[in-house]
Amino acid sequence: MSQNQSKENQLLMEVTGHRLKTKGISVSSSLFTGLAKEATDCLNPIRPPKKQLSSEFIVSSSLKSRRQIEICILSRRTEKTLHIKHFVPGDSQGHFLAGTLFLIIALWWSTKSILKHVCKQQKRSSSLITKEFFFRAELLEGIVIIGMASVGIIGLYIALPKIHQFSDKDYKLALILHWHHLAMYVFFAILGGTKILCFIISSLPVSLVKLALSNAFFVEAFIFYNHTHGRSLVDIFGHQLLSFAIFLAGLVAFIEFLTKSNVVLELLRSSLIMLHGMWFYQISFVLYPKNRNYAWDLSDHNNVMFLTICFCFYYALTCAIIGINYALVTCLVKWRLSKLCTSETQLLKNHEQQEESEDEI
Amino acid sequence: MSQNQSKENQLLMEVTGHRLKTKGISVSSSLFTGLAKEATDCLNPIRPPKKQLSSEFIVSSSLKSRRQIEICILSRRTEKTLHIKHFVPGDSQGHFLAGTLFLIIALWWSTKSILKHVCKQQKRSSSLITKEFFFRAELLEGIVIIGMASVGIIGLYIALPKIHQFSDKDYKLALILHWHHLAMYVFFAILGGTKILCFIISSLPVSLVKLALSNAFFVEAFIFYNHTHGRSLVDIFGHQLLSFAIFLAGLVAFIEFLTKSNVVLELLRSSLIMLHGMWFYQISFVLYPKNRNYAWDLSDHNNVMFLTICFCFYYALTCAIIGINYALVTCLVKWRLSKLCTSETQLLKNHEQQEESEDEI
Amino acid sequence: MSQNQSKENQLLMEVTGHRLKTKGISVSSSLFTGLAKEATDCLNPIRPPKKQLSSEFIVSSSLKSRRQIEICILSRRTEKTLHIKHFVPGDSQGHFLAGTLFLIIALWWSTKSILKHVCKQQKRSSSLITKEFFFRAELLEGIVIIGMASVGIIGLYIALPKIHQFSDKDYKLALILHWHHLAMYVFFAILGGTKILCFIISSLPVSLVKLALSNAFFVEAFIFYNHTHGRSLVDIFGHQLLSFAIFLAGLVAFIEFLTKSNVVLELLRSSLIMLHGMWFYQISFVLYPKNRNYAWDLSDHNNVMFLTICFCFYYALTCAIIGINYALVTCLVKWRLSKLCTSETQLLKNHEQQEESEDEI
Amino acid sequence: MSQNQSKENQLLMEVTGHRLKTKGISVSSSLFTGLAKEATDCLNPIRPPKKQLSSEFIVSSSLKSRRQIEICILSRRTEKTLHIKHFVPGDSQGHFLAGTLFLIIALWWSTKSILKHVCKQQKRSSSLITKEFFFRAELLEGIVIIGMASVGIIGLYIALPKIHQFSDKDYKLALILHWHHLAMYVFFAILGGTKILCFIISSLPVSLVKLALSNAFFVEAFIFYNHTHGRSLVDIFGHQLLSFAIFLAGLVAFIEFLTKSNVVLELLRSSLIMLHGMWFYQISFVLYPKNRNYAWDLSDHNNVMFLTICFCFYYALTCAIIGINYALVTCLVKWRLSKLCTSETQLLKNHEQQEESEDEI
Repeated sequence: MSQNQSKENQLLMEVTGHRLKTKGISVSSSLFTGLAKEATDCLNPIRPPKKQLSSEFIVSSSLKSRRQIEICILSRRTEKTLHIKHFVPGDSQGHFLAGTLFLIIALWWSTKSILKHVCKQQKRSSSLITKEFFFRAELLEGIVIIGMASVGIIGLYIALPKIHQFSDKDYKLALILHWHHLAMYVFFAILGGTKILCFIISSLPVSLVKLALSNAFFVEAFIFYNHTHGRSLVDIFGHQLLSFAIFLAGLVAFIEFLTKSNVVLELLRSSLIMLHGMWFYQISFVLYPKNRNYAWDLSDHNNVMFLTICFCFYYALTCAIIGINYALVTCLVKWRLSKLCTSETQLLKNHEQQEESEDEI
Repeated sequence: MSQNQSKENQLLMEVTGHRLKTKGISVSSSLFTGLAKEATDCLNPIRPPKKQLSSEFIVSSSLKSRRQIEICILSRRTEKTLHIKHFVPGDSQGHFLAGTLFLIIALWWSTKSILKHVCKQQKRSSSLITKEFFFRAELLEGIVIIGMASVGIIGLYIALPKIHQFSDKDYKLALILHWHHLAMYVFFAILGGTKILCFIISSLPVSLVKLALSNAFFVEAFIFYNHTHGRSLVDIFGHQLLSFAIFLAGLVAFIEFLTKSNVVLELLRSSLIMLHGMWFYQISFVLYPKNRNYAWDLSDHNNVMFLTICFCFYYALTCAIIGINYALVTCLVKWRLSKLCTSETQLLKNHEQQEESEDEI
Repeated sequence: MSQNQSKENQLLMEVTGHRLKTKGISVSSSLFTGLAKEATDCLNPIRPPKKQLSSEFIVSSSLKSRRQIEICILSRRTEKTLHIKHFVPGDSQGHFLAGTLFLIIALWWSTKSILKHVCKQQKRSSSLITKEFFFRAELLEGIVIIGMASVGIIGLYIALPKIHQFSDKDYKLALILHWHHLAMYVFFAILGGTKILCFIISSLPVSLVKLALSNAFFVEAFIFYNHTHGRSLVDIFGHQLLSFAIFLAGLVAFIEFLTKSNVVLELLRSSLIMLHGMWFYQISFVLYPKNRNYAWDLSDHNNVMFLTICFCFYYALTCAIIGINYALVTCLVKWRLSKLCTSETQLLKNHEQQEESEDEI
Repeated sequence: MSQNQSKENQLLMEVTGHRLKTKGISVSSSLFTGLAKEATDCLNPIRPPKKQLSSEFIVSSSLKSRRQIEICILSRRTEKTLHIKHFVPGDSQGHFLAGTLFLIIALWWSTKSILKHVCKQQKRSSSLITKEFFFRAELLEGIVIIGMASVGIIGLYIALPKIHQFSDKDYKLALILHWHHLAMYVFFAILGGTKILCFIISSLPVSLVKLALSNAFFVEAFIFYNHTHGRSLVDIFGHQLLSFAIFLAGLVAFIEFLTKSNVVLELLRSSLIMLHGMWFYQISFVLYPKNRNYAWDLSDHNNVMFLTICFCFYYALTCAIIGINYALVTCLVKWRLSKLCTSETQLLKNHEQQEESEDEI
């Protein structure tokens, strides 16, 4: 009897799975098992004849809130309806925001590295960009990073009441995911604090900032690696690639910490952080599609292979962006320097003219 | 028939598992299989009707000794009782003691590193803390580490007769776990010996101590990694994280061995050892709860995800502790130096006064 | 009923698998499942008696095009024939071409490294090979690499219409594999571009080339690692070893990027790239045999163990080739130098004779 | 029917497995499957009643040759006997020989490293051990290593006819294992050749020897990792630990190649090679017991945990051996130096006495 039950469960899973996919709902294995179990428990007090199984259920879905989908399973035979609330972990906006922040940070860090490199090569540039400027930039960075982490933590606190509406099991999972995000924010706050402290107190070793940076990335990679239990194939692979990109960024930061400063390593780190930001966009696009008719099939292995390519092309894109950034910054510095020269010559000329006019007088 | 048997076994496992969980006993998969097998073998000479299965057994448990739980399974139908002695590997006190020792060591090492760093920066401090001091500290450390390892080995020897009371299978497992601990103690004893030898015999290279340290950690990580066969999900994950923290500490020690001394690397190592010590506390808390009504469910994957967060927050805590330690030690050294200045000035003044008084005389 | 079906499927799979193997077709697990499913769906409207199963089907195969095999399954009982088109990912020529290119590149790079090393040792050689020569070589290399990558991309574009003839599922897979190759070509094009830019613009750090090189290899290794879903055992292992060789080459390039230039590291990298090229040959030989009667059994684990040995012997071969190359280049340089000496002495003598004759005049 | 068959197979496997274990035969999973299949195919033309199964077979085994065990399965009911020849890969002597060679090499290398270190510290020792000595030692080492590799290759060639007596499947496997060993010997021969070439031709970089050494170890680790398909649990774990020890030795050699020479790293490498040699002994002892009544149970996970401890204690032992070696060598050098001093003083005295006596004359 138990064997028949499980076979029926499997059939139901196939039927509902097929219907859910055509409706554009991302279906994970754990959701499925629960769904099929509930469906058989509630709708079939007496066992239905097997032949009707595939045509017996009508599955529909509606988006209740940003993080909840209601799946209705209507039994044609018994005319009963089962409402299952499916908790969607994470949302499009959150991933989008995180991605944008990392993109901006990566762009700024690459610009800073290039500026430093160009300034070192062209000695006269010290009149343009002083050490004071980089000092203040570090301080500002620290404050901005702490600010961003605080906004994240406050955001989690505000979102807390919203997850109370979920079922007990979903609430527990949502709370754990909240804690996961909190841990990440805390380590970025530590990074910000270290930045500020290291540039206020001169006796602290400067390499501490690099260590705090690699720490923040390693912790993020560690958490994302342990983040995706029971989700669907493509979802897990996407988050693994995210974790991979962050781990690489942390590794490069750690190598920077061990070796002396090297502009190419800094740009490599920036490009990996940029890749990390872009991958947040990609995940947001894959998991929370706007038009659910064109949703990705999250259990198709072809999509895993396609994500592999996306990852590589995004990386190629970051290389291109940083290359263009390098060209732009170099041109800008040279143009400003030449302008400065002209104005200085102008100044000299004016001075001579004044002297001449004074002589005339 | 064999299939029916296995199905029944599975049902019994679910029933007893559910009861054991509500009783707060950590249930590993291997325990379960054995338990269900014994239960069906002993209690059901004739096959019981399936309907009664879930309500047929009454499971109770009592703590026989620190490392043994007796589980009683009472069959309502046959009114027979089955007593199963469940060997609990490890105990709360052992993990607690190890954690405390590592915490103290990590605190001392971080203090030593900070002291060395501060002394290097402030040259006048050489009057406060001499090289002699660090020399003696190393020697004392070596003796203390050997002492601690010896206590551990003697402790294992004393506990040996206690494990004779277990069943043959449990005795074998307990003996192997004893050997595991012995191996760790031996490598810490080697570390202590190396410390003493390196500071007595000046011709030995000092980097040998760092190598012995990383060796001790790598061996510990290796053993903990191969330590948890057949335990429950959360138990295994907890020990894997323990092994991970120790491996990282060993890796940092090895990097220190390869590169020149760096205060930030030393503090990183101290923080990882501290994390390692704290994690012993956490494991002790999770696996051997004091109030068994609030015991963790050791087979729930949510708890794995929660442990991930704990690990990160403990790491954040160690960072904070080492930061505070840094601030305290720096302040203390500065305060002592300023006091020394005053007393020196005082001394000079006194000397002058004496001279003056001498003059007067 | 569903259980019987699956048992029958399994039997059919065994039968057809055996027949396909004797026909020299590489059979992956995913192909098999699909094949057996289609066969039972199409040929058996009424369940055939089990005894006849093994002798009921006649399997034949014919090579339709370079990338497509048609498998015909004839049912003796129902006299129906099922035609299944099996898409063969990749072809012999593609692997052969890639292997040849990498072999040539590796040979040239090893020659260049040895030349540089010999020139550094023998100071007079600067008259033979100038810095100008290496400068132009780098530029030419960049242009050649970009050219090769462009040819690859154009080749993919030309091959695009050919894959339209496949079934929808095969077309999707073929398209994804096309994208995989495109990603690799793009990163080699980036390498070529970096080479040209770094030697035109002197302000760019030279280590950028090493980074671009390791990037190109890491991306290739990453793609090959995620390239082989659903293929047969030996196919997967062969591609994993390919990915392993490329990863090692990338790792050595990254170590070169971090440390100062070292001739042994450069030769190690060359040997790993050469191994990578040779392995393309081996894969081409294993997966696309010319005489299909002597095809390898792609699901036999013995072949995996045999490939392990091949890999090692190929590596030994690359070591030998580079050793011989070293001896040849050193001899050549010495011979040219000695010849130069003679000609210089000759020149001097001529000059003296001329002077003498002039004197005579 | 097929399901019943598999259930029976499983029962037969348990019965024969139990009997084989009590007879001290190492039973791998692949052997078992084949054994049970053959037994059911040959002995049970008509299905035997299930109750008799456990008492129906009598299993006996006899050692036919060094590498072959004959297992006889006698069916009580049908009174038929099945003879199965079980190929035992590897033998006790081979592992013992390899272990001894690595032990001797490790001891010599540690002695050499210590001698070099002591000579560097005590400048007067140059009168004892000259650079000429180390030069000749390297040359001799190269010749000895090539000799040992040649002996290994010749040994494989001699053993070739012996494996012709196996069944076709066993012959194939034995041949592949032969090739595996050949690949290892070839790389050690390359190491020997490199040693000789590097110390004959002075223009070759000396670091090439370190690279050849790490190459030889990496290849050995790679082969041992892919060496143990289808063997029993403990067998696989033992070989994995072997592979792990070799990999670590190769890694340390590679770190030596990248950094400048460091006596502690050299001793670490020696200790890992010594561990590797000892582990050969342990594997030989576990897999090919002399008294088969006390053979290890190769499928018991407790033995895996016990091997973990053995590995650690062997490592502790190597540390102790190298420590004692260090003490001995240092004492010896000091004693020889003091003796040399005395003899020199003696020589001076004698000289003076001679002079005096000459004066007297």
